[in-house]
Amino acid sequence: MRLKGVLSYKGTNFFGYQIQKDSTQRSVQKEIQDVLKRIFNSEIKIFSSGRTDRGVHAVGQVIHFDIEKEVNVTKLKHSMNCLLPSDIHFISLEEVDETFHARFSCVNKEYRYVINLGEYSPLTNDIMYNYCSSLDLEKIKEAMKLFIGRHNFINFCANDDGDYIREIYSFTCEEKENIITFKIIGNGFRRYMVRMIIGTLIEVGKNKLDIDSLRTLINGENFLRVSFKAPSEGLYLYKVNYEKEGKSEYDDN
Amino acid sequence: MRLKGVLSYKGTNFFGYQIQKDSTQRSVQKEIQDVLKRIFNSEIKIFSSGRTDRGVHAVGQVIHFDIEKEVNVTKLKHSMNCLLPSDIHFISLEEVDETFHARFSCVNKEYRYVINLGEYSPLTNDIMYNYCSSLDLEKIKEAMKLFIGRHNFINFCANDDGDYIREIYSFTCEEKENIITFKIIGNGFRRYMVRMIIGTLIEVGKNKLDIDSLRTLINGENFLRVSFKAPSEGLYLYKVNYEKEGKSEYDDN
Repeated sequence: MRLKGVLSYKGTNFFGYQIQKDSTQRSVQKEIQDVLKRIFNSEIKIFSSGRTDRGVHAVGQVIHFDIEKEVNVTKLKHSMNCLLPSDIHFISLEEVDETFHARFSCVNKEYRYVINLGEYSPLTNDIMYNYCSSLDLEKIKEAMKLFIGRHNFINFCANDDGDYIREIYSFTCEEKENIITFKIIGNGFRRYMVRMIIGTLIEVGKNKLDIDSLRTLINGENFLRVSFKAPSEGLYLYKVNYEKEGKSEYDDN
Repeated sequence: MRLKGVLSYKGTNFFGYQIQKDSTQRSVQKEIQDVLKRIFNSEIKIFSSGRTDRGVHAVGQVIHFDIEKEVNVTKLKHSMNCLLPSDIHFISLEEVDETFHARFSCVNKEYRYVINLGEYSPLTNDIMYNYCSSLDLEKIKEAMKLFIGRHNFINFCANDDGDYIREIYSFTCEEKENIITFKIIGNGFRRYMVRMIIGTLIEVGKNKLDIDSLRTLINGENFLRVSFKAPSEGLYLYKVNYEKEGKSEYDDN
């Protein structure tokens, strides 16, 4: 049977989602696979909707894996949560159709980025970016509109090969008691893309980058890869959306 | 000159506020005194409004200390915050009258206790109590009223000598998205007192302790020290109040 799990984790003490060559380096994938091995006494590989980098959090990462025998899924979820370390937690676990794939069935993803503009807080220092200075939010909101739509994000990602075209469906922000929460939904995000977008917006908000220069960066015509990458502690993989559970446009092809 | 500082700290990685005999054990007091020693090249003792236990947080702890020379207090605060570890932060630092004493001038204190009744969250596991189960809030609110006023809290504190009479001025709670925040203001709190009060309320909220038994405990007539102590990660020293800055009833005596 194929199982789909939705999980939350605090990225602070992980070298990222993906299993590392150096087995002493903690990863979310390894912790979960180790627990599955303890339960089923065999190696079970898990597949995620995508990696998250070192230090990045998740409140809605999605994974799937296959197990050979039928199990009580509620009990399995409970056992896994008991055996997992306190920084990983399965919010849900359910049986899905064998055509479901955590990565390929995904139609869009929502990331969130949280910035504290107020007084530095030791309490939240690892779960948001303590920027602790003012930003011109009106300018930032104006700049955010430019990201909506389909763009070549070559200037907003790590130096990897591949296709840089991505589409941003929605990009909003909310401010409450000096905490700004950015919500961005797109069909996919390249490595560092959200952090580079947020880093650029911070530059705009402190008047170090004007809207015209930002437009040039987003057009992707000149290769000007941005250097302002907002830190990992503010970033959350918030939700991974699937059009129809267990069946996606991808699988229909 | 005498300086009054208001500080926040995340208690998770401290053995408590107070300096420990074993110098390898981190304490808030030691970290601050070490920084003062680096800045002034002499031993400066700091005095707090009171200790907080291992793992307990603060967002408004108050300390005072004396320095021999006149300094620019704004710059000193900035230097201290730069030199302190990321889990301690001075929110304010100001010169006060020499009659001000962080502990003896205090007229009341507010503690807060935060409980998550919803899904376990790895993100907030060290800054609130992940209880993750329902509680009868109406019963809890009824029980909270019994604590208001002057009582002998012998059943609600650690096994130390001294006077157990304390007065609770206000005790309220707010629930928002499965997070309950208790706010308790009193003229003083014995060791473990807030955690034992909250622990008892949890017992009431899950119908393991009835209101009459609670009344007996609060009356302090029978020695029945409670065993249900809510964990440290939910507790915050929220605010220390002084009637008149630099001068208190105590100093007037």
